[in-house]
Amino acid sequence: MDRPLIEPRTLRGFADLTPALALHRRRLLRVAEDTFASFGYDPIQTPALEHADVLKGKGGSESDKQMFEFDDQGGRRVALRFDLTVPLARFAAQHTELRPPLRLYQVGYVWRGERPQKGRYREFFQCDADIIGETGPSGDAEILTMFATALSRMDVGPVLLRVNDRRVLNGLLADLGLLDRAVPVLRAIDKIDKVGTDAVRAELAGSGVDGAAADRVLGFAAARGETDEQTFAAVGELLSAGGAGRAALDELRRTVELAVAAGAPEDALRVDPGIARGLDYYTGLVFETTLLAAPDIGSVCSGGRYDDLPGLFTRQRLPGVGASIGLSRLLAALEGTGRLGAGRERPLAVVTNGRDDDLRTLLGVAARLRATGVLDAEVYPTAVKHATQMKYADTRGARFVVTLDRDGSVSVKDLRGGERWSAGVEDVAVLLAKALAAAD
Amino acid sequence: MDRPLIEPRTLRGFADLTPALALHRRRLLRVAEDTFASFGYDPIQTPALEHADVLKGKGGSESDKQMFEFDDQGGRRVALRFDLTVPLARFAAQHTELRPPLRLYQVGYVWRGERPQKGRYREFFQCDADIIGETGPSGDAEILTMFATALSRMDVGPVLLRVNDRRVLNGLLADLGLLDRAVPVLRAIDKIDKVGTDAVRAELAGSGVDGAAADRVLGFAAARGETDEQTFAAVGELLSAGGAGRAALDELRRTVELAVAAGAPEDALRVDPGIARGLDYYTGLVFETTLLAAPDIGSVCSGGRYDDLPGLFTRQRLPGVGASIGLSRLLAALEGTGRLGAGRERPLAVVTNGRDDDLRTLLGVAARLRATGVLDAEVYPTAVKHATQMKYADTRGARFVVTLDRDGSVSVKDLRGGERWSAGVEDVAVLLAKALAAAD
Repeated sequence: MDRPLIEPRTLRGFADLTPALALHRRRLLRVAEDTFASFGYDPIQTPALEHADVLKGKGGSESDKQMFEFDDQGGRRVALRFDLTVPLARFAAQHTELRPPLRLYQVGYVWRGERPQKGRYREFFQCDADIIGETGPSGDAEILTMFATALSRMDVGPVLLRVNDRRVLNGLLADLGLLDRAVPVLRAIDKIDKVGTDAVRAELAGSGVDGAAADRVLGFAAARGETDEQTFAAVGELLSAGGAGRAALDELRRTVELAVAAGAPEDALRVDPGIARGLDYYTGLVFETTLLAAPDIGSVCSGGRYDDLPGLFTRQRLPGVGASIGLSRLLAALEGTGRLGAGRERPLAVVTNGRDDDLRTLLGVAARLRATGVLDAEVYPTAVKHATQMKYADTRGARFVVTLDRDGSVSVKDLRGGERWSAGVEDVAVLLAKALAAAD
Repeated sequence: MDRPLIEPRTLRGFADLTPALALHRRRLLRVAEDTFASFGYDPIQTPALEHADVLKGKGGSESDKQMFEFDDQGGRRVALRFDLTVPLARFAAQHTELRPPLRLYQVGYVWRGERPQKGRYREFFQCDADIIGETGPSGDAEILTMFATALSRMDVGPVLLRVNDRRVLNGLLADLGLLDRAVPVLRAIDKIDKVGTDAVRAELAGSGVDGAAADRVLGFAAARGETDEQTFAAVGELLSAGGAGRAALDELRRTVELAVAAGAPEDALRVDPGIARGLDYYTGLVFETTLLAAPDIGSVCSGGRYDDLPGLFTRQRLPGVGASIGLSRLLAALEGTGRLGAGRERPLAVVTNGRDDDLRTLLGVAARLRATGVLDAEVYPTAVKHATQMKYADTRGARFVVTLDRDGSVSVKDLRGGERWSAGVEDVAVLLAKALAAAD
């Protein structure tokens, strides 16, 4: 064909997953789903595209600017979701047939047109879980416990969930007479790790926070002790006695205690008064998660409480708390730290193809191998050179190569141990299953 | 708040999945993935959004018109994928580090702005699997076998894979001197089931196919026998001896024979000369799948061979064959036929909350129940009335209700069998696990 080729390429910030990474994503995703299910959470699914007015004005001006938004064929203004929390709030308000408390999870892609960088994509995969319809430390604690448990089961190395409550920060702002500037101040604090204190001080000044107040805010955000007890003491001293900030601090303490009682690893939780989160809809608990082996890649699991968000869609009171694991970023971090183990669940057998006339027999052998339930099996599609097929089996990471001999029996080579066996067409599957069971 | 509410709603043709359906989708999806893996297929993931020129002009003018297409923030022309085959072709052409033959699968949403109706959505979920880099009946047979196996394991009731080869139809068109009109003729034939023969005859006339030729084409498409042997005989008689159509028919016979040898249930495959498929890119094998309990909902699993598609992106020869299970449509069909069984994988225990001061103990009990690995467990978040909590447990489909008594022991009620037990806080999990094991 002389037609010019279309260049095969993806959009900037949009990445293909090749099998090596996709196998790992499948493993991590199943751990997340199984953990959520074990805590009594049920799956839901909401559309990737929503009416634009459902999504806009919820996360803040930054989210609105980054939204992929357009007119569809019918002239409706639509947008791709930028998170899974706003669609969940819409879902909970719409599906009145479901009675709260609701424990729900959703996994899927979200889209944000931000500047792509390491671990930051325009399309990324989230595993989100939430409780809708209840307030109080029990739900907050459960979310912390469940996400700490999921990350621990994913075997991604040590993580630190850095936990705070926006009402604690708001207590300080009330003391400073800055409560009306809470949204820009919280957004500024959220960037400390990324841009440094000088830039945050400048941003605070731009929001009308004077130098002395900015010092108080920055000193507060940095009031971390060696232990949570020290942090609670240090933060408490910066808040007025009997104020709402102190009460929120006590609730945060109770939440962390309950999370540990419920099974969250104690050294995986750390109270951090500098955590604010960038999205406008949070009203209480907020947290981020650092992967200790890759702290620079940003939070791999974040969330918090959003008691007013569903109220934009319904008069029914539907407070919520939840979080998301950023699976795309987690995969990028694991790839960078070389922490990706084997992705294949079962050993693979490649059945070589010596001549196409034997295909019926070869396909039958593969079917028998699969039927053991402990092996994946495939037949090389065409009768190319045996050396080519051996090289293919090696590239595929196959454990066994299975060959039909001229006398009608079957030879097996274990590419890992080097052993060889011979067996009949009808016996080879049982033989390999036994060999695998004995090796365990 | 006096602010007007935003109406919680989804776009037309875009559906939420509530837990009842989402639990089933999770089950069906895992069967599909596990089946693909057992045949040696590895997962990949491509983006939902692609450069528009990557997607357009591949499926035909209908697909192009239905595409969700827009300019992104950077002024790039982008589109949401309308299938998983074109992105796969782009992927295979781009990732030259992966050496064929490639056995790959991808699961995910695709988007088409067509008229929504029962089982037909604008956003729907596909499970796609393909072999890239080989031609011949071995790969075609494997695809048929694998998809028949996956559908059989999904326990969705009897299905019929209706199989054809476009080269057989092209053989007839060559005999009729209509080969240059193959694309419109195949598209017209594809609609027979939906619109009837009269409408197809009119569409053929519009494409310059005269009445006698249209009779031949329609007679050919209806040349089904009671058995595949009868169909092969009937179709063979309508094709010129020694022509390409007859050769293609022989290959199709070999493909079906191999699929059955490889383990496809014989009564799940049927040769049907009227199957054409609506997408332009198919070049050989084509098939559709009817769910016998819901024949009107359309094909729940379709695919075929597309030997020239990756050639639009690369000079490397990368023929392909594959198919997709339409999971959204399959779910809609199962919902309609009442064939949805239990969706929950493990029995659920609801731990009631008598007073919030006991939360540490209650959360600990739930953690122990979960740690058995055979139970999901949740704590009612707040200490509301016991009757409310019992009703909740019932609505959730819980198997057990677990209550902390005043004396510090734990009572369990089996909501299915009615049995009651009492145990210590530390023993109740083991007791329930044993009771479940004994009941199996």
